[in-house]
Parts: sequence; structure tokens; C-alpha cells
Amino acid sequence: MKVAGKHTRSIWVEADGVTVGVIDQTVLPHRFATIRLETLDDAARAIVSMQVRGAPLIGATAAYGICLALRADASDESLERAYAVLRATRPTAINLKWALDEMMAAVRNRPREERVAAAYRRAAEICDEDVAINQAIGGHGLALIEKIAVTKNPRERVNVLTHCNAGWLATVDVGTALAPVYAAHDAGIPLHVWVDETRPRNQGASLTAWELGQHGVPHTVIPDNTGGHLMQHGEVDIAIVGTDRVAANGDVANKIGTYLKALAAKDNNVPFYVALPSPTIDFTVKDGVADIPIEQRSGDEVATMSGKTSDSRIETVRIVPDGSAVANYGFDVTPARLVTGLITERGVVAPSREALAKAFPERSDAAE
Amino acid sequence: MKVAGKHTRSIWVEADGVTVGVIDQTVLPHRFATIRLETLDDAARAIVSMQVRGAPLIGATAAYGICLALRADASDESLERAYAVLRATRPTAINLKWALDEMMAAVRNRPREERVAAAYRRAAEICDEDVAINQAIGGHGLALIEKIAVTKNPRERVNVLTHCNAGWLATVDVGTALAPVYAAHDAGIPLHVWVDETRPRNQGASLTAWELGQHGVPHTVIPDNTGGHLMQHGEVDIAIVGTDRVAANGDVANKIGTYLKALAAKDNNVPFYVALPSPTIDFTVKDGVADIPIEQRSGDEVATMSGKTSDSRIETVRIVPDGSAVANYGFDVTPARLVTGLITERGVVAPSREALAKAFPERSDAAE
Repeated sequence: MKVAGKHTRSIWVEADGVTVGVIDQTVLPHRFATIRLETLDDAARAIVSMQVRGAPLIGATAAYGICLALRADASDESLERAYAVLRATRPTAINLKWALDEMMAAVRNRPREERVAAAYRRAAEICDEDVAINQAIGGHGLALIEKIAVTKNPRERVNVLTHCNAGWLATVDVGTALAPVYAAHDAGIPLHVWVDETRPRNQGASLTAWELGQHGVPHTVIPDNTGGHLMQHGEVDIAIVGTDRVAANGDVANKIGTYLKALAAKDNNVPFYVALPSPTIDFTVKDGVADIPIEQRSGDEVATMSGKTSDSRIETVRIVPDGSAVANYGFDVTPARLVTGLITERGVVAPSREALAKAFPERSDAAE
Repeated sequence: MKVAGKHTRSIWVEADGVTVGVIDQTVLPHRFATIRLETLDDAARAIVSMQVRGAPLIGATAAYGICLALRADASDESLERAYAVLRATRPTAINLKWALDEMMAAVRNRPREERVAAAYRRAAEICDEDVAINQAIGGHGLALIEKIAVTKNPRERVNVLTHCNAGWLATVDVGTALAPVYAAHDAGIPLHVWVDETRPRNQGASLTAWELGQHGVPHTVIPDNTGGHLMQHGEVDIAIVGTDRVAANGDVANKIGTYLKALAAKDNNVPFYVALPSPTIDFTVKDGVADIPIEQRSGDEVATMSGKTSDSRIETVRIVPDGSAVANYGFDVTPARLVTGLITERGVVAPSREALAKAFPERSDAAE
């Protein structure tokens, strides 16, 4: 999507044909800076430090991490090590494992001298496939927004609520939860997005607000506490969020706090959709609430906050008393019963074992 | 309760017998500073700027604001003006109006020369009544916590979740939602409090964590997004929050985000209690969700965050992109159907029109 009017992806190969470029998402929204990844460790560090984040972009970065590792050493040992290092960067994201497995399949049975070129080819395909999937998600989600728009007066906006960032910054381009938003905005449907700031890392305030603003989509940043009140008073027409992992039963792991918004949507008859590329579905997890592991992250993310000072420095301030404990659960799991539908590249699918298996039989069968 | 081991109230009359002292709650938890209020405007400013906050403390501060106004000018015009100025400081808090009406009743029909002394007497009584009410709330809430404690192993903690600050800092002393917590802790029941940070103003992280820490109560600060996940996994035994206004039908206005926690409590069979002094009940509002006005506050509270830098300065940083809109609703209303019980000075009351009218017939009848 657009940055300062210019079309930009979140990951690319530099002019040298080997170095990988990404946006440093930790300094957004106050600075737009790019980073050059030249080694496996660069790629792993970018994922761990959340310079890149979002399940599809993590997958794409890991894919290129394999490329960079093979450039330095194309042996089986190097490949296995790269797989292990990258796999360990983020435990919850299922796309990470999917992308790594794709890369392994693409290079493992080739002679060493062919591995680097094959790896870059497959990594580029993974990126292009992600964009195509997201465009398909956008099309299916657009149909949902169009249905709401026709019930409104011509000047009335469709109000969308989203949590965290499942926009183009979380993917290679277009986004998942925001794909329908961009499709609707570009199609001329008047719409407005309520952006949950998404504590503790504020990906909503920092990233979603930034990318919507750059693309010209009207939006309002709200504290995570606000969505229930807005839904209670008819100010939200549809909620659309992304996900890090969908279980075989339709339970949805996403950024901590998603479950609370889904409860409020149910209580107020607001449709609650989850947008995802099908690699996000983990058919090996039968019960999401019981079995999806939840990453616990550093308490510093809760105890401190970074932002821009009045003289434009980036400063980190402590917001919790010295001596108070903090806890930082990265995700929660929204039970399938609270989800209206899953917007996938193959259309809107009911969040149930049966519907998912029917929509993705090749993946469901493979997990049996 | 205790500050650095010394018993402290949140508002007091200084040694000169007229100046009013309060804690500047805007610089907590990083600094403990007190302020001297000498005029009506000082008192109004302390409320508007949220140097004092919390419904009962706002009421007490407004009461002393009348005293300070009468010291300068004990005329009817001065009294009426003070009432109007103080009434306009915070639109949602019903205790504010209650305290001002009490003060009017105490001084209006007296000769001018008696008004100042009568005002200080009534303001002191309002403070002492608040403490007595909160102690009664603490006793009734303690019984609820004791019932949970006996179902646990002796070393297992009772886990309480609270939102915002309804501790002693929000009252004259003891607190409302935290009164049962202090009573249980002081009675030797092992307990632990999950403290919602409570964006956008972070009263949980700043004030609740600070006062629990000063009194020695184990606690953990969590983002507001976290409570649903904890309840889903059995980590919360009871939720207790305060309130700014309870409608005649038992609907509860409290800090924005309370409704989301009540939904999660309901979904996970966690008891959800609201602690309040009975002046918080507004029998003139029949339907809380429909009719309680919700204060919209400055967007700066959402767009910026204040805290302590690594070199111990207090700094404010911007956390939303330049150009993004923000919205800041101060409160939401939790429907009575999600509330397990109202912990009042007269015991635990069901959140219904009938039960409230039965428990407080003199106030219910007066509103008819």
C-alpha cells in the first residue's frame, strides 16, 4: 500500500539481488526507517525484536532468513540450524513453521550449488502468494462491507473496529483484517475505522493508525477499553481482526484483548469477523482455548512506554511504580462461538471443524 | 491507609485549621507530593485537573471547596457561585452533587457569621462518614473473600481483579473496591490483586499499584486487554470494581472498560462485584445504559503518556501518529445483568430496582 504516496511492500530484495530490506516497525509511527538483513542472525533478530511482526510477514522474513543462511553455508547442517534458530524466534505464529517447512521442501533435496537460487525463488513466491491471498481476502471482505453500506444513508460511514495491526505492515502487502478496509475505501465506500491502541505494544496506535493515515483512510484511535461502549451505542457496524493461529475447531488466537472485543460484539449483535490466510489454520490443534500455547513476553513492554517528546526525541518512560510486578501475555484465544465468520482467500468460512475441513480439505486431511 | 508506613488520608485540614491538604495524584506513582488548597478556585482546579479524583474524594474536595469559598465571602451569591463552579467540574460523578447539596443544606439557612464554621464541621463529617461507610463495605466484602479462601489450599492465594482506582486514594480513606482487599489482607488471608492499568489515564498502574504496594498487598499490573484471558484460565476468583454512578435499575457507570471485564466475568462464571457508598446510587436515573451521560475527555489523554525517564525526570511522550484522530470516552455503563452484587455499607445488594429500593428506601422514595 502507500507510504507518502508511493507504493511500498513490507519486505523486498535489495538491488544487489541478495540483501533483504524490511521496514523497522519498532520506530513507527514517528520515523520511517528501513533495515538491511544480510545474515541469518539479522533475520532472526528482526523477528525477535519485532522490527518485523505479523504472522505472514514473520513467515516471509523467516523464508528469507533461510536464503541468507544458505548464502553463507549451503550445507545440510547450516539448513537445519537456520530452521531451528528461526523456528525458536516466536512460539505462537504458525505461519513461521509453515514458511520454514515450505523452504525446507524447496531446497532440501537439491545439490548445494542450487540451493541458494532455489531458496530465493521460493521466498519470492511465498511473498507473492501472500499478496494474492490477501487480495482475495480483501475481495470477500469487501462484499461484507458493501452489504452494510447499502443499508445506510449515502453520506453515512460504515464503522469498522479493529484490534492490533493486521494491515499491510503485518503481511507482505494489502493486509488481512485491513484488506477489506482498503478494498472498500479504494472502491469509494465511505468508511471509518476505530483503531484499538492495543496495549502493551500499541501496534494499533503505532502501526494501524499510521498505515491507514498514509493510505488516506479515516480512522480514530481509541483505548482498548472503549470498544464495548461504542458497540453498546451503535457506533460499530463490523469488527474485523487478524489472527496468529486458528485451531481446527475455529477458535482464534490473536493479540491479547481480542476475546474481550468478541464478547462485546456478541453482546451487541455486532458481526465479528477474523481475516486470515489459510496457512494460519493449524489443523493439528483440535481445541484452541485449551491447547494453543500463549507466549509470555517481557514485563518491560507493560511497565514502560515509548513515544515522541515535544522536541521530537524518541523516549521511553516507566509507567508502573518501582517494585510492582507486571504480567504480559501476548495473545488470547477467542472461542469459535463468538466468531461470525473467518474471511479466507477461499471466501467466508464458518468457524467450525466441519466448515474448515470442507473449505480446506487438503490441509485438514494432512493433519489427520 | 499506609504511605511509607505512616497512616495517611487523601484529604485533610492543615494545622492552620482552614487550608485543605490533598495528595497530587497526577504525579503518582513516581512522586509523593501534597498540595494546599486555599480558595474555591484551588479546589475546583484540583478536581478538573484530576489532582484529586474518585467519586467520594471529589465529593469531599467539593465540600471543602464550599468552605474555602465561604471563608472569602459568606454571602448567598458566593455560596450559589461556589455550588455552580464546583458542580461543573466533573459531569458524571453523582457524589459531587450529593456532597454539594449536603453542604448547601448545612449552611444555607444560617446567618453569614456562622456559615464558615458550619461548613467546615459538615465537610469533616462528610469525610468521617465516608471512612465509616468504606469500613462497612470492607467488612461485607471481606465475607465474600473469606468464602472463596476457605475453598482453597491454605497456601493458595485468592486472586482479585480490579479496574481503575477505587482504593483509598479515590476516597477519604480505606477505599471502596479495595476496602475488602485491605480488610482481607489485614486479616491475614493470602491474596493477590490483578491490577488493570486502566488506559488512557492509567489510574490502575499509577494509583492502585502504588497504594497496594505502600500497604504491602501482593499485586501484578496487567494491560486492560489481559483480564479475559486470565478469567478463561481460572486465574481470577473475584472481580471487584468501584463506580461513579449506579442507576435505579442497578446499571453501573464506571471507568471505561469495566463493561468488557464484566462480560468476561459472566462468560467464565467469575463473580463480578461493584463496591460503592450509597450516595453513588442515583435513583433519579431509571435506566443506566440509556440515560447516564458519558463524559468525553481530551484526546491528549489518549495520544500521550507520561512517565519516569531512566534519569528520573517526568516526561510526556506522544504515542499516536501526528494527524490521527483520537476519542476519549471516560466511562461506560455495565448492564445490571452482568453484575453479581453491589457491595454497599448496608451489605451486598442485588443489582435490581426492587433490591436497591428495599435496601435504601429513604433515598429511593425521595427520588419518586
